[in-house]
Amino acid sequence: MSTRLPVDLAKSYRLLNHGPTVLVSSQHEGRRNVMAAAWSMPLDYAPPKVAVVIDRNTLTRELVEGSGEFVLNVPSRELAGITLAVGSVSGREADKFDARGIAAFAGDKVNAPLLEGCLGWLECRVIPEPHIQQTYDLFLAEVVAAWADARAFKDGHWIFEEGSPRSIHYVAGGNFFETGESFVAEK
Amino acid sequence: MSTRLPVDLAKSYRLLNHGPTVLVSSQHEGRRNVMAAAWSMPLDYAPPKVAVVIDRNTLTRELVEGSGEFVLNVPSRELAGITLAVGSVSGREADKFDARGIAAFAGDKVNAPLLEGCLGWLECRVIPEPHIQQTYDLFLAEVVAAWADARAFKDGHWIFEEGSPRSIHYVAGGNFFETGESFVAEK
Repeated sequence: MSTRLPVDLAKSYRLLNHGPTVLVSSQHEGRRNVMAAAWSMPLDYAPPKVAVVIDRNTLTRELVEGSGEFVLNVPSRELAGITLAVGSVSGREADKFDARGIAAFAGDKVNAPLLEGCLGWLECRVIPEPHIQQTYDLFLAEVVAAWADARAFKDGHWIFEEGSPRSIHYVAGGNFFETGESFVAEK
Repeated sequence: MSTRLPVDLAKSYRLLNHGPTVLVSSQHEGRRNVMAAAWSMPLDYAPPKVAVVIDRNTLTRELVEGSGEFVLNVPSRELAGITLAVGSVSGREADKFDARGIAAFAGDKVNAPLLEGCLGWLECRVIPEPHIQQTYDLFLAEVVAAWADARAFKDGHWIFEEGSPRSIHYVAGGNFFETGESFVAEK
């Protein structure tokens, strides 16, 4: 059984800083969805902000624009198959949560669902920037709450020990890298 | 001796897709600089675009705004110390290339220097978006040429075999992760 702990907002950028692929979950007017996004990054420390690309043809786009909210979920390798799957089909065809048996729980500040089995969660509120949303499919948002699985991230640090769950980094064509060996650099 | 090969622009996003930390190099009116950036990502496939955060207080910002160009260099673990160092001091104090003995070579389309010892290089031209540059320190750019070390990236694919050079992912406080084990997910 995993334990979810709140992450200090000032350290929440660390959930994304190493560039993991994320799942973007959203909810609006009774509809919910989840898609994969390799294109996300931190944008600021305080208040913490993120940037993420959300294609104009996705249901996620419609729900994010409607609600002004989303969650960035950091999946573990165990969820790589689901990450690939939810990045390949549209939520307009079927509820992906039901289709894949994805369990979710409620966040603290936004209505978008948080996915069970992830390592970290960033609850986000869109900062409206219509020009870049329309021109580049680029969304900026403020992180209003953050959570982590205590087995993977604790006291502001990732713990990727032998055998513990790790985040993943998508390349293309179903190919991922696991987050690898940790090391400390000297200037 | 490494061999640099051109990367097909349509596949150049793969140099960044897994979220490595990059070095941003720039040059303007006889001055050059390099800084580290964990906050970069692909923004589009065709033409390929990228997004990167460049703090308003950096010399890099001045050179990028002056020239309208920069290079995203993907460093290997061997360059982690330099990545940490160039992210910690300002180019206004000293030429970081001279100070750290960083060798560079010329690109094809932009004047910013490409750093020796990196695994991939994206030559970029800024897409002027003054509002988001000023408000969020966020720069969008088109990738106009791309290169890779053939030992690490070939025919559009990363090759991270045992003992071969790997890209790196910064977290905080000098802590990095190496790009880890490759795997293929099934939907």
